[in-house]
Amino acid sequence: MTRVHAYILGASGFGGGELLRLLAGHPAVAAIRATSKENADVPFWKVHPHLRGLVEGRFDSEPDWHWLTDSQQPVVFSVLDDQELARQLPALEKRWAELGLSERLVLVDLSPDFRLDHPGRYAATHGRSHPVPDMLERFVYGLPEWRRDKLQGAKRIANPGCFATAVQLALLPVASTPGLGMIAATAVTGSSGSGALPGEVTHHPTRAHDFRAYRALQHPQESEMDVMLVAHKASRHRLTFVPHSAPLVRGIFATVQFEWPENAGGVSVESLSAIYRRYYETSPFVRVVEGTPRLASVVGSNFVDVAVATRGRTVAVMVALDNLVKGMSGQAVQNLNLALGLPEDTALRQAACYPC
Amino acid sequence: MTRVHAYILGASGFGGGELLRLLAGHPAVAAIRATSKENADVPFWKVHPHLRGLVEGRFDSEPDWHWLTDSQQPVVFSVLDDQELARQLPALEKRWAELGLSERLVLVDLSPDFRLDHPGRYAATHGRSHPVPDMLERFVYGLPEWRRDKLQGAKRIANPGCFATAVQLALLPVASTPGLGMIAATAVTGSSGSGALPGEVTHHPTRAHDFRAYRALQHPQESEMDVMLVAHKASRHRLTFVPHSAPLVRGIFATVQFEWPENAGGVSVESLSAIYRRYYETSPFVRVVEGTPRLASVVGSNFVDVAVATRGRTVAVMVALDNLVKGMSGQAVQNLNLALGLPEDTALRQAACYPC
Amino acid sequence: MTRVHAYILGASGFGGGELLRLLAGHPAVAAIRATSKENADVPFWKVHPHLRGLVEGRFDSEPDWHWLTDSQQPVVFSVLDDQELARQLPALEKRWAELGLSERLVLVDLSPDFRLDHPGRYAATHGRSHPVPDMLERFVYGLPEWRRDKLQGAKRIANPGCFATAVQLALLPVASTPGLGMIAATAVTGSSGSGALPGEVTHHPTRAHDFRAYRALQHPQESEMDVMLVAHKASRHRLTFVPHSAPLVRGIFATVQFEWPENAGGVSVESLSAIYRRYYETSPFVRVVEGTPRLASVVGSNFVDVAVATRGRTVAVMVALDNLVKGMSGQAVQNLNLALGLPEDTALRQAACYPC
Amino acid sequence: MTRVHAYILGASGFGGGELLRLLAGHPAVAAIRATSKENADVPFWKVHPHLRGLVEGRFDSEPDWHWLTDSQQPVVFSVLDDQELARQLPALEKRWAELGLSERLVLVDLSPDFRLDHPGRYAATHGRSHPVPDMLERFVYGLPEWRRDKLQGAKRIANPGCFATAVQLALLPVASTPGLGMIAATAVTGSSGSGALPGEVTHHPTRAHDFRAYRALQHPQESEMDVMLVAHKASRHRLTFVPHSAPLVRGIFATVQFEWPENAGGVSVESLSAIYRRYYETSPFVRVVEGTPRLASVVGSNFVDVAVATRGRTVAVMVALDNLVKGMSGQAVQNLNLALGLPEDTALRQAACYPC
Repeated sequence: MTRVHAYILGASGFGGGELLRLLAGHPAVAAIRATSKENADVPFWKVHPHLRGLVEGRFDSEPDWHWLTDSQQPVVFSVLDDQELARQLPALEKRWAELGLSERLVLVDLSPDFRLDHPGRYAATHGRSHPVPDMLERFVYGLPEWRRDKLQGAKRIANPGCFATAVQLALLPVASTPGLGMIAATAVTGSSGSGALPGEVTHHPTRAHDFRAYRALQHPQESEMDVMLVAHKASRHRLTFVPHSAPLVRGIFATVQFEWPENAGGVSVESLSAIYRRYYETSPFVRVVEGTPRLASVVGSNFVDVAVATRGRTVAVMVALDNLVKGMSGQAVQNLNLALGLPEDTALRQAACYPC
Repeated sequence: MTRVHAYILGASGFGGGELLRLLAGHPAVAAIRATSKENADVPFWKVHPHLRGLVEGRFDSEPDWHWLTDSQQPVVFSVLDDQELARQLPALEKRWAELGLSERLVLVDLSPDFRLDHPGRYAATHGRSHPVPDMLERFVYGLPEWRRDKLQGAKRIANPGCFATAVQLALLPVASTPGLGMIAATAVTGSSGSGALPGEVTHHPTRAHDFRAYRALQHPQESEMDVMLVAHKASRHRLTFVPHSAPLVRGIFATVQFEWPENAGGVSVESLSAIYRRYYETSPFVRVVEGTPRLASVVGSNFVDVAVATRGRTVAVMVALDNLVKGMSGQAVQNLNLALGLPEDTALRQAACYPC
Repeated sequence: MTRVHAYILGASGFGGGELLRLLAGHPAVAAIRATSKENADVPFWKVHPHLRGLVEGRFDSEPDWHWLTDSQQPVVFSVLDDQELARQLPALEKRWAELGLSERLVLVDLSPDFRLDHPGRYAATHGRSHPVPDMLERFVYGLPEWRRDKLQGAKRIANPGCFATAVQLALLPVASTPGLGMIAATAVTGSSGSGALPGEVTHHPTRAHDFRAYRALQHPQESEMDVMLVAHKASRHRLTFVPHSAPLVRGIFATVQFEWPENAGGVSVESLSAIYRRYYETSPFVRVVEGTPRLASVVGSNFVDVAVATRGRTVAVMVALDNLVKGMSGQAVQNLNLALGLPEDTALRQAACYPC
Repeated sequence: MTRVHAYILGASGFGGGELLRLLAGHPAVAAIRATSKENADVPFWKVHPHLRGLVEGRFDSEPDWHWLTDSQQPVVFSVLDDQELARQLPALEKRWAELGLSERLVLVDLSPDFRLDHPGRYAATHGRSHPVPDMLERFVYGLPEWRRDKLQGAKRIANPGCFATAVQLALLPVASTPGLGMIAATAVTGSSGSGALPGEVTHHPTRAHDFRAYRALQHPQESEMDVMLVAHKASRHRLTFVPHSAPLVRGIFATVQFEWPENAGGVSVESLSAIYRRYYETSPFVRVVEGTPRLASVVGSNFVDVAVATRGRTVAVMVALDNLVKGMSGQAVQNLNLALGLPEDTALRQAACYPC
C-alpha cells in the first residue's frame, strides 16, 4: 500500500484532533506531523487529551517540508484560518516545486478559501476579495457524492463546509429536477463547529440549554450550496438557509423543504426514497433511512443518514451527519482516499458512539 | 379582587404542575383543587417535587363539583388526555347546569379537543371523528394575541398547542398580506412536551445528545396554524411544517421562511420589525428582539421573543417560547385573566430562569 | 413596609442578574440601581436578557451614593471581584459616614473578602494577606440557618460561598456531636458558578459532557466550613473536600460521609432525620426529604433539600441547592430580610423550575 | 490468528451493542451471532442504529450451540438479566459438554451472578440466595489490572461492575497499605448505565439537568470492592460508597478519600503518583494523569484515567472511565484477549470521542 507522509497545518483545533485520530488509524499513512504556532513543541495529547497513549508526536511551529520529500506520497491537510492558506499558497507552491513535491503532493484544504468556483462569488460571499483568485480553478470541490470522478487522482482539494455538505446531500439526487422554486433550508449545529477557542456563543452556562438562530439568510456556506444547484442547471430555484445553534456538541441536522414541480410527475415517500437510494447506491457513507435520520446514529462516524417526507407535492428532506467527521476531517480523509485511488472508506468504517 | 376557586382536571403531568405553581401565586385565586386518577389522595408535592412546602393539597380521584358552587368565580382547567374532556363534556355541562354553575364557570381546555373550528377539519387532522361536534363552536380559540377581543369574558376556551402558538405568533402580523405562497415552517421542541410518562423518545441515553425530526409534514397542530391563515383570507398560501425533537427540556423555537409578495412593496428588517412591533404593541408578553430570539431568554417565563431577517424578498421569522408556560399553562392563565377582565399579565410577570 | 433603595455593585455577572430579578419582586424595595464598569449606560436587559420588559434601568459606571441618602433604608450588595470591596471599603465607609448613611446602611458582600473570622486564616486560605484585616470582625457570616440571631439587625454581612453553604447545611445539625473524626465531603457544581465570562473550563464543546474534579483538597471554601465546625467545638474532626465540575448549568450537590461516634449512641435514618428536621424546623428554606435530594427540585429557587443515609455507624448526608440562589443571591436577599426584620422568605417563595 | 466464533446472549441492550461493535472490529473474531428474545429475527441495526451498514446479522431467539462447534475457538458473552445465566448454567454446561465445547469454550458473564467469591456474601449483597453456589468458584473475577495472571487462559470469567471497576482501580495500588481506616468513595454515572429500557430515572425531562444520589451506602457493587480490599489483607479498612446519577449519558467518575496511615511514611502527590504509575506500568489502558481525570478524555474508549491529590495525610484518588466500555463491554473483550493469549489491547485501541 502507498506509504503516505501526512502534514497537518494548524492542527490544534477540533478538526486537527480528528485528523490526527483518523490518520493514525489509516493503513496507508506511515507517518504524521502537525504544526501549531501556539503549541510549538507541545505533545499532541496535551491539546487533544483523547490521543494520550495513542498518537505520539509534538507540534512543529513551522512545517519541515524536507520531511515530505522522503515520502512515496506526500500529503498536506490545511486547517489554517480563513485566507491564511490562500495567502501563503503562492510561496508554498514555489517551495514544493523546488523540492520536487508539486506533482505528487495531495493538498486538502479544510478552510473556505478554495470552495467557490469564481472570485466574484467569493467576494460577494465573504465580503472581501480573494487573495489569489487565479488559484481557485486548481481546486476540486471535495464532496465525494457529487464530485467523485474529479476527486479520483486530484491533487488540490477544497473540503466542503459542514452545513454545505448536509444541504447538498439533501438536494443532490433532485438537483436536476426542472422547475424547482423556493427551497427553504434550516439546520442546527453543535458547539464544536465553533472551534476550540472559548467565546461568548460557546459559554456553557448560556449555551447549554439555549437554542438560537444565527446569520439567518446570511450564512456564507449558502454559496457552496448554490454553486451545486447552478451546476445542475436548476433554473429559477431560490435557496434560503437559516442555521441555528443547538445545545449539542457534535452534529449537523438539516431540513430542506420545497415543492415538487407539477411537470415532474407525482411524488411520494416511496418514489422519492427510491431516487435517493439509487443516487447514493455507490456512496458508502450515505444511508437512506425510514422516517427520520437521527444525530445519535451518526455522531462519531463518517456516516450521513437521509430521509424524505412528502405531503401532496410538498417535500421535506432531512439529513444528519457529524460536523467534525463527515462535515470536516472524515470527509477530508475520504477525499484523500479518492485522490490516492484507495477504497473510499479506508480508515473510516467506524461506528457512531451510541448511545453517547 | 374576584375570588376564584380553580379545579384542575388531570393535574399530574407537567402542565398540571405548572398550573398549580402559577395559580398558587395568582392574587385572584382563593383556592385550588386538582384531580389525578392515578394519584388519588397523594400530596401534590410527591408528583411535583418543586411545589413541596409551597402548594398544599392532595389529588382528588374525581372532581367535587359542589366545592365550586361556594365560589364567586368557578374555574376549571382541563389537562385530560385527547378526547377525554370532549366525551365527558355533555354530562359535565348538565351537571354544572344543575349546580347553577354553567353561566359563571370559566373552562379552559388544554387538550386539542376544541381547538379547530370545524368537525371536518378535526376528523381530517386527527384521523377520527369528533365526539361532540356540536360543541366545537362554543369554544373560543385561546391565542390572546389574535383573539384577545373574543377572549374577554369568554366562558369556554380552547388553549392552543405549543407549536401552533409559536408559528402563529411568527405569522400573525403578516397573515393578511395578499399573495403569500409557500410558507416553510420548522420548529424544535424540548422533551417536556412529551409529558411526564417515560417512553422511548424521551429515554435519556438516546435523547440527550440526539436531534431528529418527527411527523414531518404530518403534525396535527399544523391545522391550527392553517385555520389562522385562512381566517386572515390569505389566499394561495401553502404552509408546511416539520417539527423536531431537540436535546432540550423546555422550549419551542420556530423558524418560518417565506417570500414577500412582489405586489406588497419592499421589505427590510427595519420595515418588517416595525410591522411586528406595531402588531404586538398591546401584547404584554411578545418582545420583538434584534438578531435572533433565544430560548435561554424565555424558558421559565410567559414571554415570547420574535425576530425577523430578510434578504431580498426572502423573509425568515424566528420565535422562542417556553412550551409549558406560553405554550401551555401560562397561556391558560393568560386566557383566564382575559376571561375575568383582569390585567392580562396577572401572576405571569416572572422572568426566565437565566442562565438555567 | 420599609422603603429600600438598593445599590448593586458589579452587577453584570450572573449573581448580579439574579439580584436584580429578586429585588425587582421584593415588596420592600422601592428602587434599584446597579453599577458595571464595562457596561456603563447599557440597559440591564442587554446583559441580562431575561429581564427585558421586566426590570428597567441602565448600569452606572460609578455608584451615586447621594441617591441612597433619599432612602428610608439604604442597602448595598457588592458582587465585586475578590479583594476589590475590601480595598475600597475604608474610603467607602468614610464616604458613607459623611453622607450620614453608615448606621442605617445594610451592606451584603457576596465575595469571599469578609467570610473568614481571622486574618491568619484568610491569608492561609487565599495565599495573600487581607487588605483590611481590622474590618473582618465587623461582618456577620450570612448563613441564616446558623447565624440567624446575629443576622437580625446586622449592618455588614458576608454572604457565604455556594459550596460552603451546602456542606455547612449538611453538617450543622450534627456539628456539636463530640468525637467526629474524618469528614469526607465531595460536591458538584454547575458551570454558572464560573461566572459570566467565557473561559476554558466553561467552553461548551469540552464541558457539556465532561465531569472532572478541580482543586481537590485545596478549595478555599473549605475554610468557611471548617470555621463552622471549630465554632461548634467539634474536636479532632478532619474535614476534606473535593469539588467537581458537572455538566450542569445550575446547582450544588454535596455528599458528606463520616462515622457516627461510638459514644454518641446509635444512629439510623429515622433518628438522624429527626435531628435534622428539628434543627431546621424554623428554617423556611430547608426541606428534609426522604431518600435523596435532587437538583431538579431546587434549581431556580432558594430551597435546600437535605437527606441522610446510614449503614451501621456510617452516615451520608446529601444536600442540593441552586448555586446562584441559595448559594448566592437568594441567600443575600434572605440575609437582607433578616437584617431588616422582615419575614425571612420575603420575595423568595418561588418554586423551582420543574422540569427545567 | 485464532478464529473465534462469538455468541452474545441477550444482546439488545447497550452493552450488547457495544460488544457487537467491538467484536466486529476484532481481528481474531471470524463470526458473531447474538440472541434477543424480544427481537428475534430483527436485524441488529434496527436495535443498534449505529451499526447499520457495518454489522450484518439478525437476532436469534435461542442460541444455536451447534454453530459454535464449527469454530476453532468458541466464545460466549452473556448479557442476560441478573440470575438468568446462573439459573441456566447447569443445563448449558451439560449441553456444551455433549457438544465437546466445555474445555475450549470461553464464557464471559457481564452480569453480577459470578462476581463475588462466596455464596454468603452474594446473599448478603443481593438479598437472595445464589441459584448455583457451587459454580461460583469456577469463575475468575475479570479485572485485568488485578487478576491478569489468572485471566490468562481462563475459561469462565465474571466481568466486574462499572462502579466496582472504577473504585478498585482507584485503590489497587494502595490496597496492601496496612492501617487504612475509613475509605469514603463517591461516584457518578451516566444514564446509559440504567440500560436501554425507558424508566422513571431516565426520563429525559426530569433527568437531563438533575443530579441525585441513589442507594447511598447500599449499592451491591460495594461488595466487589470490599472483596478486593479483603484479598489484599487490608485490615480495619472501612469502605463506604455513595453513587449518584449525573446528567451524562456515558461515564463513571469516582472520587475516593482516605487518610494515609502514619506508620506508612510520608505521602505526596509525587510519591503517590509514582506508586500508581509503577503499579499500572504494564496495564495498557490505565493512564496516570496530572491534576484530575476527565470523562471527556475517556468516553468511547477503553481507557481509564487516574489522578491523585494529597493534603497532609489526606489522599483523594479520582478515576474516570466509560461505563459501557472499560466498565462493561470493552473490559469483556480485554478479558477475552487475556483468555486467548492475545495482546491485551487487541481491538480496543480506539480513542475517546473528543469533544463529544
